[in-house]
Amino acid sequence: MLIIGELINTSRKAVKPAVEQRDAAFIQTLAKKQVEAGADYVDVNCGTMVYNEVETMEWLVNTIQEAVSAPLCIDTPRAEAIEAGLAAAKNGQPMVNSISAEKDRFVQVLPMVLKYKAKVVALCMDDNGIPGSAEERITIVRHLVKDLTDAGVPEDDIYLDPLITPISTGDKFGLDVLETVRFIRQEYPRVHAACGLSNISYGLPNRKVLNHAFMIQTMAYGMDAYIMDPLDKAMMGFVHASQALIGQDPFCMGYLKAHRNGLYE
Amino acid sequence: MLIIGELINTSRKAVKPAVEQRDAAFIQTLAKKQVEAGADYVDVNCGTMVYNEVETMEWLVNTIQEAVSAPLCIDTPRAEAIEAGLAAAKNGQPMVNSISAEKDRFVQVLPMVLKYKAKVVALCMDDNGIPGSAEERITIVRHLVKDLTDAGVPEDDIYLDPLITPISTGDKFGLDVLETVRFIRQEYPRVHAACGLSNISYGLPNRKVLNHAFMIQTMAYGMDAYIMDPLDKAMMGFVHASQALIGQDPFCMGYLKAHRNGLYE
Repeated sequence: MLIIGELINTSRKAVKPAVEQRDAAFIQTLAKKQVEAGADYVDVNCGTMVYNEVETMEWLVNTIQEAVSAPLCIDTPRAEAIEAGLAAAKNGQPMVNSISAEKDRFVQVLPMVLKYKAKVVALCMDDNGIPGSAEERITIVRHLVKDLTDAGVPEDDIYLDPLITPISTGDKFGLDVLETVRFIRQEYPRVHAACGLSNISYGLPNRKVLNHAFMIQTMAYGMDAYIMDPLDKAMMGFVHASQALIGQDPFCMGYLKAHRNGLYE
Repeated sequence: MLIIGELINTSRKAVKPAVEQRDAAFIQTLAKKQVEAGADYVDVNCGTMVYNEVETMEWLVNTIQEAVSAPLCIDTPRAEAIEAGLAAAKNGQPMVNSISAEKDRFVQVLPMVLKYKAKVVALCMDDNGIPGSAEERITIVRHLVKDLTDAGVPEDDIYLDPLITPISTGDKFGLDVLETVRFIRQEYPRVHAACGLSNISYGLPNRKVLNHAFMIQTMAYGMDAYIMDPLDKAMMGFVHASQALIGQDPFCMGYLKAHRNGLYE
Protein backbone atom coordinates (compact mmCIF):
# COMPACT_ATOMS: atom_id res chain seq x y z
CA MET A 1 0.00 0.00 0.00
CA LEU A 2 1.24 3.47 -0.91
CA ILE A 3 -0.19 6.59 0.69
CA ILE A 4 0.51 9.86 -1.11
CA GLY A 5 -0.21 12.78 1.21
CA GLU A 6 -2.19 15.36 -0.77
CA LEU A 7 -2.20 18.40 1.50
CA ILE A 8 0.58 20.49 -0.08
CA ASN A 9 -1.55 21.84 -2.90
CA THR A 10 -1.93 25.52 -3.68
CA SER A 11 -5.58 25.04 -4.57
CA ARG A 12 -6.14 24.61 -0.82
CA LYS A 13 -7.07 27.83 0.98
CA ALA A 14 -4.52 27.53 3.78
CA VAL A 15 -1.66 26.53 1.51
CA LYS A 16 -1.90 29.17 -1.20
CA PRO A 17 -0.88 32.21 0.88
CA ALA A 18 1.82 30.18 2.66
CA VAL A 19 3.39 29.32 -0.67
CA GLU A 20 3.00 32.83 -2.05
CA GLN A 21 4.77 34.22 1.01
CA ARG A 22 7.40 31.44 0.87
CA ASP A 23 6.47 30.40 4.41
CA ALA A 24 8.88 27.48 4.69
CA ALA A 25 7.92 26.61 8.28
CA PHE A 26 4.25 26.16 7.35
CA ILE A 27 5.06 23.90 4.41
CA GLN A 28 7.62 21.89 6.36
CA THR A 29 5.20 21.33 9.24
CA LEU A 30 2.55 20.13 6.79
CA ALA A 31 5.05 17.74 5.19
CA LYS A 32 6.21 16.38 8.56
CA LYS A 33 2.66 15.90 9.84
CA GLN A 34 1.72 13.90 6.77
CA VAL A 35 4.78 11.65 6.97
CA GLU A 36 4.25 11.09 10.70
CA ALA A 37 0.64 10.15 9.97
CA GLY A 38 1.71 7.49 7.48
CA ALA A 39 2.26 9.16 4.10
CA ASP A 40 4.83 7.24 2.02
CA TYR A 41 5.07 10.06 -0.54
CA VAL A 42 4.46 13.80 -0.16
CA ASP A 43 2.49 15.24 -3.07
CA VAL A 44 3.60 18.65 -4.35
CA ASN A 45 1.04 20.54 -6.40
CA CYS A 46 1.31 24.22 -7.22
CA GLY A 47 -0.71 24.10 -10.39
CA THR A 48 -2.67 27.21 -9.46
CA MET A 49 0.54 29.29 -9.62
CA VAL A 50 0.14 29.73 -13.35
CA TYR A 51 2.76 32.46 -13.77
CA ASN A 52 5.59 30.97 -11.74
CA GLU A 53 4.79 27.28 -11.31
CA VAL A 54 8.32 26.18 -12.24
CA GLU A 55 10.09 28.38 -9.73
CA THR A 56 7.47 27.58 -7.06
CA MET A 57 7.83 23.84 -7.64
CA GLU A 58 11.57 24.09 -7.20
CA TRP A 59 11.19 26.05 -3.96
CA LEU A 60 8.58 23.62 -2.62
CA VAL A 61 10.66 20.53 -3.38
CA ASN A 62 13.76 21.99 -1.76
CA THR A 63 11.81 23.28 1.24
CA ILE A 64 10.02 19.98 1.88
CA GLN A 65 13.24 17.98 1.57
CA GLU A 66 14.83 20.05 4.33
CA ALA A 67 12.12 18.70 6.64
CA VAL A 68 11.41 15.09 5.65
CA SER A 69 13.24 12.21 4.01
CA ALA A 70 10.14 10.78 2.34
CA PRO A 71 10.17 10.87 -1.48
CA LEU A 72 8.02 13.40 -3.34
CA CYS A 73 5.27 13.13 -5.88
CA ILE A 74 5.58 15.90 -8.48
CA ASP A 75 1.95 16.64 -9.26
CA THR A 76 1.39 18.75 -12.35
CA PRO A 77 0.46 18.27 -15.98
CA ARG A 78 3.04 20.86 -17.11
CA ALA A 79 6.28 19.42 -18.50
CA GLU A 80 8.53 22.28 -17.35
CA ALA A 81 7.26 22.01 -13.78
CA ILE A 82 7.73 18.21 -13.80
CA GLU A 83 11.31 18.66 -15.00
CA ALA A 84 12.04 21.29 -12.35
CA GLY A 85 10.51 19.12 -9.59
CA LEU A 86 12.33 15.96 -10.63
CA ALA A 87 15.66 17.74 -11.03
CA ALA A 88 15.39 19.01 -7.45
CA ALA A 89 13.98 15.79 -5.96
CA LYS A 90 16.69 13.95 -3.99
CA ASN A 91 14.69 11.83 -1.51
CA GLY A 92 14.60 8.26 -2.79
CA GLN A 93 12.65 7.42 -5.97
CA PRO A 94 10.47 10.34 -7.06
CA MET A 95 6.99 9.99 -8.51
CA VAL A 96 5.33 11.92 -11.32
CA ASN A 97 1.59 12.64 -11.27
CA SER A 98 0.83 12.33 -14.10
CA ILE A 99 1.20 10.99 -17.58
CA SER A 100 -1.82 9.93 -19.68
CA ALA A 101 -2.63 8.39 -23.05
CA GLU A 102 -3.11 11.87 -24.54
CA LYS A 103 -0.55 11.89 -27.34
CA ASP A 104 1.21 15.19 -26.63
CA ARG A 105 1.30 14.66 -22.87
CA PHE A 106 2.63 11.11 -23.24
CA VAL A 107 5.45 12.24 -25.55
CA GLN A 108 6.37 15.17 -23.31
CA VAL A 109 6.32 13.43 -19.93
CA LEU A 110 7.77 10.02 -20.84
CA PRO A 111 11.40 11.16 -21.34
CA MET A 112 11.47 12.68 -17.85
CA VAL A 113 10.02 9.54 -16.24
CA LEU A 114 12.80 7.57 -17.91
CA LYS A 115 15.59 10.10 -17.21
CA TYR A 116 14.80 10.32 -13.49
CA LYS A 117 13.71 6.64 -13.13
CA ALA A 118 10.51 7.94 -11.54
CA LYS A 119 7.38 6.11 -10.53
CA VAL A 120 4.51 7.46 -12.61
CA VAL A 121 0.76 7.88 -12.19
CA ALA A 122 -0.84 7.13 -15.56
CA LEU A 123 -4.33 8.56 -16.01
CA CYS A 124 -6.79 6.36 -17.94
CA MET A 125 -7.70 9.06 -20.43
CA ASP A 126 -6.72 9.84 -23.99
CA ASP A 127 -7.38 12.61 -26.49
CA ASN A 128 -11.08 11.74 -26.34
CA GLY A 129 -11.20 12.81 -22.68
CA ILE A 130 -12.30 10.87 -19.61
CA PRO A 131 -13.80 7.48 -20.57
CA GLY A 132 -17.51 6.91 -20.04
CA SER A 133 -17.33 3.20 -19.20
CA ALA A 134 -15.17 0.46 -17.70
CA GLU A 135 -14.60 -0.99 -21.19
CA GLU A 136 -13.14 2.28 -22.49
CA ARG A 137 -10.92 2.54 -19.42
CA ILE A 138 -9.68 -1.00 -19.96
CA THR A 139 -8.79 -0.23 -23.59
CA ILE A 140 -6.72 2.73 -22.41
CA VAL A 141 -5.13 0.64 -19.63
CA ARG A 142 -3.89 -1.83 -22.25
CA HIS A 143 -2.39 0.98 -24.36
CA LEU A 144 -0.73 2.69 -21.41
CA VAL A 145 0.85 -0.46 -19.99
CA LYS A 146 2.12 -1.53 -23.42
CA ASP A 147 3.50 1.89 -24.37
CA LEU A 148 5.11 2.53 -20.97
CA THR A 149 6.74 -0.90 -20.65
CA ASP A 150 7.83 -0.87 -24.32
CA ALA A 151 9.60 2.41 -23.54
CA GLY A 152 11.38 0.81 -20.59
CA VAL A 153 9.29 1.83 -17.56
CA PRO A 154 9.21 -1.17 -15.16
CA GLU A 155 5.70 -2.50 -14.43
CA ASP A 156 6.31 -1.92 -10.70
CA ASP A 157 6.77 1.81 -11.34
CA ILE A 158 3.40 2.26 -13.09
CA TYR A 159 0.36 3.47 -11.09
CA LEU A 160 -2.76 3.38 -13.25
CA ASP A 161 -5.41 5.89 -12.17
CA PRO A 162 -8.84 4.79 -13.49
CA LEU A 163 -10.13 8.38 -13.01
CA ILE A 164 -13.11 8.72 -10.79
CA THR A 165 -16.34 10.37 -11.93
CA PRO A 166 -18.86 11.48 -9.26
CA ILE A 167 -21.68 8.99 -8.59
CA SER A 168 -23.97 12.01 -8.37
CA THR A 169 -23.62 12.22 -12.16
CA GLY A 170 -24.12 8.52 -12.93
CA ASP A 171 -25.19 5.47 -10.90
CA LYS A 172 -22.61 3.14 -12.46
CA PHE A 173 -19.53 5.35 -12.11
CA GLY A 174 -18.37 3.67 -8.90
CA LEU A 175 -18.78 0.21 -10.43
CA ASP A 176 -16.80 1.28 -13.52
CA VAL A 177 -13.81 2.01 -11.32
CA LEU A 178 -14.13 -1.29 -9.41
CA GLU A 179 -14.30 -3.24 -12.67
CA THR A 180 -11.26 -1.42 -14.05
CA VAL A 181 -9.25 -2.18 -10.91
CA ARG A 182 -10.29 -5.84 -11.05
CA PHE A 183 -9.07 -5.99 -14.66
CA ILE A 184 -5.73 -4.39 -13.78
CA ARG A 185 -5.22 -6.84 -10.90
CA GLN A 186 -5.99 -9.87 -13.06
CA GLU A 187 -4.20 -8.83 -16.23
CA TYR A 188 -1.19 -6.94 -14.84
CA PRO A 189 -0.51 -8.24 -11.32
CA ARG A 190 2.73 -6.25 -11.00
CA VAL A 191 1.26 -2.93 -12.17
CA HIS A 192 -0.29 -0.75 -9.46
CA ALA A 193 -3.62 1.07 -9.29
CA ALA A 194 -3.91 4.54 -7.73
CA CYS A 195 -6.56 7.18 -7.29
CA GLY A 196 -7.68 10.25 -5.46
CA LEU A 197 -10.90 9.69 -3.53
CA SER A 198 -12.79 12.93 -3.20
CA ASN A 199 -14.22 13.08 -6.74
CA ILE A 200 -16.48 10.09 -6.09
CA SER A 201 -18.62 12.04 -3.60
CA TYR A 202 -18.77 15.38 -5.43
CA GLY A 203 -22.23 16.95 -5.21
CA LEU A 204 -23.45 14.74 -2.33
CA PRO A 205 -23.74 15.30 1.44
CA ASN A 206 -21.56 13.50 4.04
CA ARG A 207 -18.72 13.24 1.56
CA LYS A 208 -16.31 11.67 4.05
CA VAL A 209 -18.61 8.67 4.54
CA LEU A 210 -18.68 8.05 0.79
CA ASN A 211 -14.91 8.64 0.43
CA HIS A 212 -14.16 6.21 3.27
CA ALA A 213 -16.47 3.55 1.87
CA PHE A 214 -15.07 3.94 -1.64
CA MET A 215 -11.51 3.57 -0.37
CA ILE A 216 -12.53 0.34 1.37
CA GLN A 217 -14.31 -0.95 -1.74
CA THR A 218 -11.50 -0.11 -4.18
CA MET A 219 -8.83 -1.57 -1.88
CA ALA A 220 -10.84 -4.81 -1.68
CA TYR A 221 -10.69 -4.93 -5.49
CA GLY A 222 -6.94 -4.36 -5.57
CA MET A 223 -6.30 -0.60 -5.57
CA ASP A 224 -2.96 -0.20 -3.81
CA ALA A 225 -2.16 3.52 -3.82
CA TYR A 226 -4.20 6.52 -2.69
CA ILE A 227 -3.66 10.24 -3.05
CA MET A 228 -5.38 11.30 0.15
CA ASP A 229 -5.30 13.24 3.40
CA PRO A 230 -3.29 11.14 5.86
CA LEU A 231 -4.40 13.45 8.69
CA ASP A 232 -7.95 12.12 8.29
CA LYS A 233 -7.75 9.67 11.20
CA ALA A 234 -10.93 7.82 10.31
CA MET A 235 -9.64 7.31 6.76
CA MET A 236 -6.25 6.03 7.97
CA GLY A 237 -8.05 3.83 10.50
CA PHE A 238 -10.02 2.24 7.66
CA VAL A 239 -6.83 1.83 5.59
CA HIS A 240 -5.28 -0.29 8.35
CA ALA A 241 -8.54 -2.17 9.03
CA SER A 242 -8.98 -2.92 5.32
CA GLN A 243 -5.46 -4.25 4.95
CA ALA A 244 -5.97 -6.59 7.90
CA LEU A 245 -9.28 -7.79 6.45
CA ILE A 246 -7.87 -8.60 3.00
CA GLY A 247 -4.85 -10.53 4.22
CA GLN A 248 -2.24 -7.81 3.66
CA ASP A 249 -1.30 -7.42 7.32
CA PRO A 250 0.31 -10.55 8.81
CA PHE A 251 -1.06 -11.25 12.32
CA CYS A 252 -2.85 -7.86 12.13
CA MET A 253 0.40 -6.30 13.34
CA GLY A 254 -0.03 -3.05 11.39
CA TYR A 255 -3.60 -2.73 12.62
CA LEU A 256 -2.63 -3.38 16.23
CA LYS A 257 0.25 -0.91 15.99
CA ALA A 258 -2.13 1.77 14.65
CA HIS A 259 -4.42 0.98 17.58
CA ARG A 260 -1.59 1.31 20.12
CA ASN A 261 -0.59 4.63 18.52
CA GLY A 262 -4.07 5.97 19.25
CA LEU A 263 -5.45 6.09 15.71
CA TYR A 264 -8.84 4.79 16.83
CA GLU A 265 -9.27 7.05 19.88
CA MET B 1 -30.39 -5.68 0.15
CA LEU B 2 -31.94 -7.41 3.14
CA ILE B 3 -31.27 -6.26 6.71
CA ILE B 4 -32.10 -8.78 9.43
CA GLY B 5 -32.23 -7.02 12.82
CA GLU B 6 -30.30 -9.16 15.29
CA LEU B 7 -31.12 -7.59 18.63
CA ILE B 8 -33.83 -9.94 19.92
CA ASN B 9 -31.44 -12.62 21.09
CA THR B 10 -31.46 -14.08 24.61
CA SER B 11 -27.67 -14.30 24.60
CA ARG B 12 -27.72 -10.50 24.95
CA LYS B 13 -27.60 -9.28 28.55
CA ALA B 14 -30.54 -6.88 28.33
CA VAL B 15 -32.77 -9.29 26.45
CA LYS B 16 -32.43 -12.42 28.57
CA PRO B 17 -34.22 -11.17 31.73
CA ALA B 18 -36.88 -9.43 29.62
CA VAL B 19 -37.69 -12.71 27.91
CA GLU B 20 -37.56 -14.70 31.15
CA GLN B 21 -40.01 -12.28 32.74
CA ARG B 22 -42.16 -12.23 29.58
CA ASP B 23 -41.74 -8.46 29.35
CA ALA B 24 -43.73 -7.97 26.15
CA ALA B 25 -43.32 -4.16 26.11
CA PHE B 26 -39.51 -4.42 26.13
CA ILE B 27 -39.46 -6.92 23.28
CA GLN B 28 -42.02 -5.01 21.24
CA THR B 29 -40.10 -1.76 21.60
CA LEU B 30 -36.92 -3.50 20.46
CA ALA B 31 -38.73 -4.93 17.45
CA LYS B 32 -40.27 -1.56 16.52
CA LYS B 33 -36.98 0.30 16.87
CA GLN B 34 -35.24 -2.14 14.54
CA VAL B 35 -37.94 -1.92 11.88
CA GLU B 36 -38.01 1.87 12.10
CA ALA B 37 -34.22 1.87 11.65
CA GLY B 38 -34.46 -0.15 8.46
CA ALA B 39 -34.63 -3.85 9.39
CA ASP B 40 -36.50 -5.85 6.73
CA TYR B 41 -36.67 -8.93 8.98
CA VAL B 42 -36.66 -9.24 12.76
CA ASP B 43 -34.44 -12.05 13.97
CA VAL B 44 -35.77 -14.15 16.87
CA ASN B 45 -33.17 -16.14 18.78
CA CYS B 46 -33.82 -17.71 22.17
CA GLY B 47 -31.25 -20.46 21.83
CA THR B 48 -29.94 -19.90 25.35
CA MET B 49 -33.31 -20.95 26.79
CA VAL B 50 -32.32 -24.60 26.65
CA TYR B 51 -35.17 -25.93 28.77
CA ASN B 52 -38.08 -24.09 27.19
CA GLU B 53 -36.88 -22.80 23.83
CA VAL B 54 -39.98 -24.00 21.99
CA GLU B 55 -42.46 -22.27 24.28
CA THR B 56 -40.28 -19.14 24.40
CA MET B 57 -40.01 -19.00 20.61
CA GLU B 58 -43.78 -19.18 20.30
CA TRP B 59 -44.25 -16.38 22.83
CA LEU B 60 -41.61 -14.20 21.16
CA VAL B 61 -43.07 -14.62 17.67
CA ASN B 62 -46.58 -13.80 18.86
CA THR B 63 -45.39 -10.88 20.97
CA ILE B 64 -43.32 -9.32 18.19
CA GLN B 65 -46.11 -9.68 15.64
CA GLU B 66 -48.44 -7.68 17.87
CA ALA B 67 -46.01 -4.76 17.42
CA VAL B 68 -44.65 -4.90 13.86
CA SER B 69 -45.73 -6.16 10.48
CA ALA B 70 -42.22 -7.04 9.32
CA PRO B 71 -41.59 -10.75 8.73
CA LEU B 72 -39.53 -12.76 11.21
CA CYS B 73 -36.35 -14.76 10.97
CA ILE B 74 -36.58 -17.88 13.14
CA ASP B 75 -33.01 -18.24 14.33
CA THR B 76 -32.21 -21.59 15.94
CA PRO B 77 -30.59 -24.88 14.99
CA ARG B 78 -33.26 -26.86 16.90
CA ALA B 79 -35.95 -28.37 14.69
CA GLU B 80 -38.75 -28.18 17.29
CA ALA B 81 -38.12 -24.48 17.85
CA ILE B 82 -38.05 -23.81 14.11
CA GLU B 83 -41.38 -25.58 13.72
CA ALA B 84 -42.93 -23.64 16.62
CA GLY B 85 -41.62 -20.34 15.25
CA LEU B 86 -42.78 -20.97 11.69
CA ALA B 87 -46.20 -22.21 12.80
CA ALA B 88 -46.74 -18.96 14.70
CA ALA B 89 -45.18 -16.63 12.08
CA LYS B 90 -47.93 -14.78 10.18
CA ASN B 91 -46.10 -11.65 8.90
CA GLY B 92 -45.30 -12.16 5.21
CA GLN B 93 -42.74 -14.78 4.17
CA PRO B 94 -40.82 -16.10 7.19
CA MET B 95 -37.13 -16.93 7.17
CA VAL B 96 -35.28 -19.79 8.84
CA ASN B 97 -31.75 -19.34 10.17
CA SER B 98 -30.46 -21.92 9.49
CA ILE B 99 -30.03 -25.06 7.53
CA SER B 100 -26.57 -26.45 6.64
CA ALA B 101 -24.99 -29.28 4.69
CA GLU B 102 -24.73 -31.35 7.89
CA LYS B 103 -26.74 -34.46 6.98
CA ASP B 104 -29.04 -34.68 10.02
CA ARG B 105 -29.70 -30.95 10.13
CA PHE B 106 -30.45 -30.79 6.41
CA VAL B 107 -32.94 -33.65 6.62
CA GLN B 108 -34.62 -32.20 9.71
CA VAL B 109 -34.93 -28.58 8.62
CA LEU B 110 -35.72 -28.99 4.90
CA PRO B 111 -39.32 -30.23 5.31
CA MET B 112 -40.22 -27.16 7.39
CA VAL B 113 -38.65 -24.77 4.88
CA LEU B 114 -40.82 -26.40 2.20
CA LYS B 115 -43.98 -26.64 4.30
CA TYR B 116 -43.90 -22.96 5.29
CA LYS B 117 -42.40 -21.71 1.99
CA ALA B 118 -39.74 -19.97 4.06
CA LYS B 119 -36.61 -18.17 2.99
CA VAL B 120 -33.65 -20.03 4.43
CA VAL B 121 -30.12 -19.15 5.53
CA ALA B 122 -27.87 -22.04 4.49
CA LEU B 123 -24.58 -22.25 6.38
CA CYS B 124 -21.55 -23.31 4.34
CA MET B 125 -20.60 -26.14 6.69
CA ASP B 126 -21.05 -29.89 6.63
CA ASP B 127 -20.35 -32.79 8.98
CA ASN B 128 -16.65 -31.93 8.82
CA GLY B 129 -17.33 -28.58 10.52
CA ILE B 130 -16.54 -25.05 9.37
CA PRO B 131 -14.42 -25.09 6.17
CA GLY B 132 -10.83 -23.91 6.35
CA SER B 133 -10.61 -22.39 2.86
CA ALA B 134 -12.59 -20.69 0.10
CA GLU B 135 -12.33 -23.88 -2.03
CA GLU B 136 -14.01 -25.99 0.67
CA ARG B 137 -16.73 -23.37 1.09
CA ILE B 138 -17.35 -23.38 -2.66
CA THR B 139 -17.70 -27.17 -2.70
CA ILE B 140 -20.34 -26.94 0.03
CA VAL B 141 -22.07 -24.05 -1.79
CA ARG B 142 -22.47 -26.28 -4.86
CA HIS B 143 -23.96 -29.10 -2.75
CA LEU B 144 -26.32 -26.80 -0.86
CA VAL B 145 -27.68 -25.04 -3.94
CA LYS B 146 -28.17 -28.34 -5.79
CA ASP B 147 -29.82 -30.13 -2.87
CA LEU B 148 -32.08 -27.21 -1.93
CA THR B 149 -33.23 -26.45 -5.48
CA ASP B 150 -33.66 -30.17 -6.28
CA ALA B 151 -35.97 -30.33 -3.26
CA GLY B 152 -38.02 -27.41 -4.60
CA VAL B 153 -36.65 -24.38 -2.73
CA PRO B 154 -36.58 -21.43 -5.20
CA GLU B 155 -33.11 -19.94 -5.76
CA ASP B 156 -34.43 -16.55 -4.66
CA ASP B 157 -35.28 -17.99 -1.22
CA ILE B 158 -31.76 -19.26 -0.52
CA TYR B 159 -29.31 -17.13 1.51
CA LEU B 160 -25.87 -18.75 1.58
CA ASP B 161 -23.84 -17.83 4.66
CA PRO B 162 -20.11 -18.39 3.95
CA LEU B 163 -19.45 -18.47 7.72
CA ILE B 164 -17.00 -15.94 8.97
CA THR B 165 -13.89 -16.92 10.93
CA PRO B 166 -12.05 -14.19 12.91
CA ILE B 167 -9.08 -12.64 11.10
CA SER B 168 -7.30 -12.72 14.46
CA THR B 169 -7.01 -16.49 13.93
CA GLY B 170 -5.86 -16.40 10.29
CA ASP B 171 -4.74 -13.66 7.89
CA LYS B 172 -6.66 -15.09 4.92
CA PHE B 173 -10.03 -15.64 6.57
CA GLY B 174 -11.49 -12.36 5.31
CA LEU B 175 -10.32 -13.07 1.76
CA ASP B 176 -11.86 -16.57 1.91
CA VAL B 177 -15.26 -15.00 2.49
CA LEU B 178 -14.81 -12.45 -0.32
CA GLU B 179 -13.81 -15.20 -2.76
CA THR B 180 -16.78 -17.33 -1.75
CA VAL B 181 -19.18 -14.42 -2.29
CA ARG B 182 -17.63 -13.68 -5.67
CA PHE B 183 -18.16 -17.32 -6.67
CA ILE B 184 -21.80 -17.27 -5.53
CA ARG B 185 -22.46 -14.06 -7.49
CA GLN B 186 -20.89 -15.44 -10.68
CA GLU B 187 -22.24 -18.98 -10.52
CA TYR B 188 -25.68 -18.44 -8.98
CA PRO B 189 -26.79 -14.86 -9.72
CA ARG B 190 -30.28 -15.46 -8.29
CA VAL B 191 -29.10 -17.02 -5.03
CA HIS B 192 -28.37 -14.62 -2.17
CA ALA B 193 -25.41 -14.33 0.19
CA ALA B 194 -25.89 -13.49 3.86
CA CYS B 195 -23.76 -13.20 6.97
CA GLY B 196 -23.43 -11.87 10.47
CA LEU B 197 -20.56 -9.43 10.80
CA SER B 198 -19.24 -9.49 14.34
CA ASN B 199 -17.24 -12.74 14.10
CA ILE B 200 -14.73 -11.18 11.70
CA SER B 201 -13.35 -8.86 14.41
CA TYR B 202 -13.37 -11.28 17.34
CA GLY B 203 -10.26 -10.89 19.50
CA LEU B 204 -9.26 -7.48 18.08
CA PRO B 205 -9.71 -3.89 19.33
CA ASN B 206 -12.03 -1.32 17.66
CA ARG B 207 -14.33 -4.09 16.50
CA LYS B 208 -16.88 -1.71 14.99
CA VAL B 209 -14.31 -0.28 12.56
CA LEU B 210 -13.51 -3.79 11.32
CA ASN B 211 -17.18 -4.79 11.16
CA HIS B 212 -18.07 -1.66 9.18
CA ALA B 213 -15.19 -2.15 6.75
CA PHE B 214 -16.00 -5.83 6.28
CA MET B 215 -19.64 -5.03 5.53
CA ILE B 216 -18.49 -2.55 2.88
CA GLN B 217 -16.03 -5.07 1.39
CA THR B 218 -18.46 -7.99 1.29
CA MET B 219 -21.25 -5.85 -0.18
CA ALA B 220 -18.86 -4.72 -2.94
CA TYR B 221 -18.33 -8.40 -3.75
CA GLY B 222 -22.05 -9.17 -3.86
CA MET B 223 -23.21 -9.99 -0.32
CA ASP B 224 -26.84 -8.86 -0.19
CA ALA B 225 -28.14 -9.73 3.28
CA TYR B 226 -26.77 -8.95 6.72
CA ILE B 227 -27.77 -10.12 10.18
CA MET B 228 -26.79 -6.99 12.06
CA ASP B 229 -27.71 -4.23 14.50
CA PRO B 230 -29.80 -1.72 12.55
CA LEU B 231 -29.55 0.72 15.49
CA ASP B 232 -25.83 1.13 14.73
CA LYS B 233 -26.19 4.41 12.85
CA ALA B 234 -22.66 4.37 11.43
CA MET B 235 -23.23 0.84 10.08
CA MET B 236 -26.56 1.80 8.48
CA GLY B 237 -24.92 4.95 7.10
CA PHE B 238 -22.30 2.80 5.39
CA VAL B 239 -24.99 0.43 4.09
CA HIS B 240 -26.67 3.30 2.25
CA ALA B 241 -23.35 4.81 1.11
CA SER B 242 -22.17 1.42 -0.19
CA GLN B 243 -25.36 0.83 -2.15
CA ALA B 244 -25.02 4.23 -3.82
CA LEU B 245 -21.37 3.54 -4.66
CA ILE B 246 -22.02 0.16 -6.30
CA GLY B 247 -24.90 1.30 -8.47
CA GLN B 248 -27.74 -0.16 -6.39
CA ASP B 249 -29.35 3.17 -5.54
CA PRO B 250 -30.72 5.02 -8.59
CA PHE B 251 -29.91 8.74 -8.41
CA CYS B 252 -28.60 8.15 -4.84
CA MET B 253 -32.21 8.52 -3.68
CA GLY B 254 -31.91 6.04 -0.81
CA TYR B 255 -28.69 7.68 0.34
CA LEU B 256 -30.18 11.17 0.18
CA LYS B 257 -33.29 10.03 2.05
CA ALA B 258 -31.12 8.53 4.80
CA HIS B 259 -29.29 11.87 4.95
CA ARG B 260 -32.53 13.83 5.22
CA ASN B 261 -33.69 11.48 7.99
CA GLY B 262 -30.62 12.43 10.02
CA LEU B 263 -28.69 9.16 9.76
CA TYR B 264 -25.40 11.00 9.27
CA GLU B 265 -25.81 13.56 12.07
